[in-house]
Amino acid sequence: MPVPGPLTGTFVVDMSRVLAGPFCTMLLADLGARVVKVEPPAGDDARRIGPFMEGVSAYFASLNRGKESIALDLKEAGDRAVFEQLVSRADVLVENFRPGVIERLGYGWETLHARHPRLVVASVSGFGQTGPYAERPAYDVIVQAMGGMMSLTGPSGGPPSRVGSSLGDINAGLFAAVGIQAALLERARTGAGRRVDVAMLDCQVAVLENAIARYRVSGVVPGPLGTRHPSIAPFQALAASDGFVVVAAGNDALFEKLCGAVGRSELAREPRFASNDARMENVEQLAATLEDTLAAEPVAVWLERLLDAGVPCGPLNDVAQVLEDPQVRARNMVVRSGGFELTGNPIKLSETDDPTTREPAPGLDADRTALLAEFG
Amino acid sequence: MPVPGPLTGTFVVDMSRVLAGPFCTMLLADLGARVVKVEPPAGDDARRIGPFMEGVSAYFASLNRGKESIALDLKEAGDRAVFEQLVSRADVLVENFRPGVIERLGYGWETLHARHPRLVVASVSGFGQTGPYAERPAYDVIVQAMGGMMSLTGPSGGPPSRVGSSLGDINAGLFAAVGIQAALLERARTGAGRRVDVAMLDCQVAVLENAIARYRVSGVVPGPLGTRHPSIAPFQALAASDGFVVVAAGNDALFEKLCGAVGRSELAREPRFASNDARMENVEQLAATLEDTLAAEPVAVWLERLLDAGVPCGPLNDVAQVLEDPQVRARNMVVRSGGFELTGNPIKLSETDDPTTREPAPGLDADRTALLAEFG
Repeated sequence: MPVPGPLTGTFVVDMSRVLAGPFCTMLLADLGARVVKVEPPAGDDARRIGPFMEGVSAYFASLNRGKESIALDLKEAGDRAVFEQLVSRADVLVENFRPGVIERLGYGWETLHARHPRLVVASVSGFGQTGPYAERPAYDVIVQAMGGMMSLTGPSGGPPSRVGSSLGDINAGLFAAVGIQAALLERARTGAGRRVDVAMLDCQVAVLENAIARYRVSGVVPGPLGTRHPSIAPFQALAASDGFVVVAAGNDALFEKLCGAVGRSELAREPRFASNDARMENVEQLAATLEDTLAAEPVAVWLERLLDAGVPCGPLNDVAQVLEDPQVRARNMVVRSGGFELTGNPIKLSETDDPTTREPAPGLDADRTALLAEFG
Repeated sequence: MPVPGPLTGTFVVDMSRVLAGPFCTMLLADLGARVVKVEPPAGDDARRIGPFMEGVSAYFASLNRGKESIALDLKEAGDRAVFEQLVSRADVLVENFRPGVIERLGYGWETLHARHPRLVVASVSGFGQTGPYAERPAYDVIVQAMGGMMSLTGPSGGPPSRVGSSLGDINAGLFAAVGIQAALLERARTGAGRRVDVAMLDCQVAVLENAIARYRVSGVVPGPLGTRHPSIAPFQALAASDGFVVVAAGNDALFEKLCGAVGRSELAREPRFASNDARMENVEQLAATLEDTLAAEPVAVWLERLLDAGVPCGPLNDVAQVLEDPQVRARNMVVRSGGFELTGNPIKLSETDDPTTREPAPGLDADRTALLAEFG
């Protein structure tokens, strides 16, 4: 059952599988929507992605908490009737089949819109419902590469790197959640549902920040920069004795404070480091010089000194360290759900519960009896 | 003026600056909301971030299209009165000051909520309004590091890398847009506005995908993997003669097709590559063997052969190539706005215009006269 939240009363039928669609509907469930997952008889493919704990996929668990499940064979008349009953009462239908599949099932947008004019239908796909690549298969790694993100990520001058989390999928799920809610707000005004068409590739392009404008104005194709900022120094990760410290000294005053805090006040007066322009020109030397000093002590010592001096900084945490971080814990960003530890909901709302325990992801077809009684 | 869209009629007063807040309000404007940017007399700091075209910041232009601007000194009584008039008619107020600043201006949540019970107030900050780090300054590079994303990104075994676009800010802007719309939907039901508290750090944790559950179940702290998938091979970027081809061969049948398409059918029968488990065990050898072959021809040749064979694949595009991509163009993901080329809106809605030209970002205080006439 969903937690109470701003979307309480919103009913979502979710035919999506694996990552982008389920991330979107998990966010809606975290905000209070009721989400019924309609799975094929074999279940969402994500149920078979490891690692497993007592037979349950951690991958599936981290994307499907708080949802209900029913398995339906949409080639079978009885199951189609159940599906149609669910859809007739839904506010939102979410699917992430390849374009054309939902039409072949007989549930294309025109058909559904004619039958259920208030229904919002969201389709999340690799390349979108239109355009020359519409029917190509896509995976996170492909859209991260095609959309330019990979070309901006990795060591300076080195090989391009994939963002280590599937942001090709996740950003599409986020934009889909924005589009669905916008359509629900419009429906409140007009009474009409809309088709929301979100492509993973489009979403990669949409989060390139100012890279396109920057390239067109400067003529320089941006490449990867390691952890560095393109125009401010020092603004990067620097190695200490037991890990990395990230510093963000955005102006001369902060650079002076930084130098003082690490016991190297003289650096701020050297011509090669005296201004941001000079520091950018000598950015490799600057990092090497600071790292010579930072190598003497562990991350925790430097962070304390830098924070005391008012220099923006932080540790470079691995996933185990993230779990122990006091701020992450205080903000309830790690929750328990069905025996798993999962990430919490980052949307914190006044007067709204943010429970530390969430309903587990459903077993395949776990809610069949209750759903048939309600919708049969 | 905003484009017509699902949020037509929604009025947003935007005190946010630089990146996370303005990205959020740009998305709302792209969906039809009216966004009035309330800037300090010196303007949003982003106006001073290069590169510039005819004196206009490309950085600012790519985050503020379709908004109006008024410069107000919130320490001055007359300007405060104008601000209060704007807020009294607003549906949403967005700010990304450090926690405590808006309270010191006299516009904290309790005050505003008492005066304007229907107003939704969204606060985007580095660490959130609560918790031990609430008042620390944050920048994209700091939250990417603290939230674990950097530890997952970069070459295998190599130094951690920052995601090359400011996703620390942008994901916070996206979650804020989700939270604001959820609050507006709740308000349509209850009449009451809510405070939306979104932290950049929380949002980094929220997009770690299954990394936390995976770590807890397996006990292995995940690290960077270059462009590779953690458990499927080949699923990565491979070097051809003039760039990289990304292949995603998720099972044995696709691997056989891949080998056939590049003229190396025998590879699929070698024991070291005959199953996914074997390929994962020999993943470096596999990449090197395929790259020996791929080095003979350019990316375009390989893509044609792989696509013909039905192997999911794509090019690794730099930003210049993204701009020329036929799918990106067909989906209208590059738009013109005030002389700049910017990314389009990835939320495509039925019956809704998606213009290729967007209103430019406003000059500082450009809409003062009209706004004073309307709200003065």
